[in-house]
Amino acid sequence: MQVNDVHWSDAEQNIAQQAFHNAYERETQALIQEIQEHASRVSTLEDIWQLHNFLSARRHEIDGKYDYSYPALLFVFATLVKQGWLHLDELTGLDKGKLAKIASLARM
Amino acid sequence: MQVNDVHWSDAEQNIAQQAFHNAYERETQALIQEIQEHASRVSTLEDIWQLHNFLSARRHEIDGKYDYSYPALLFVFATLVKQGWLHLDELTGLDKGKLAKIASLARM
Repeated sequence: MQVNDVHWSDAEQNIAQQAFHNAYERETQALIQEIQEHASRVSTLEDIWQLHNFLSARRHEIDGKYDYSYPALLFVFATLVKQGWLHLDELTGLDKGKLAKIASLARM
Repeated sequence: MQVNDVHWSDAEQNIAQQAFHNAYERETQALIQEIQEHASRVSTLEDIWQLHNFLSARRHEIDGKYDYSYPALLFVFATLVKQGWLHLDELTGLDKGKLAKIASLARM
């Protein structure tokens, strides 16, 4: 990583925190809706355990993904962009090098 | 265990299967209702993981409880009676010794 990837200015930190929050809120709301729809369809114990399996998998994935630490943040944002929870233009204002790396990682 | 606890006549097996099925259906329907109510109230990721924890605990308990094997059945029925998923009178027709043991275990 170059110096510009490691250093986050105050302005960049504000942008990053807001973008992180936006993605987190979007994914949370989508997950809540999905769970409520899923729960409304359960009619057997097997269905309930499928809902449980679904939640286990989502918890594992989400716990691992939302890591707000600056060394990890380029990868976190790239994942969120790739999955559609964040738009690249919400990161406008970050250093161009960071943006290019996020965009590049998101295409992988 | 005495011989009468080990041997289950065809008539007793029919009664036991029906009682087991009734309790299972009651508990499943109550759990479905509880999950749907719980799911309708979630509004944060923390709420979702609480629902997940709840399901993990219930799965562990239910998987361990509904063991339809004749050696275990007196204990299974005692637990179901104690928890209110089964009424003792649904076991009418079982050998009196079995009924007495189930009633006794259910009071523990």
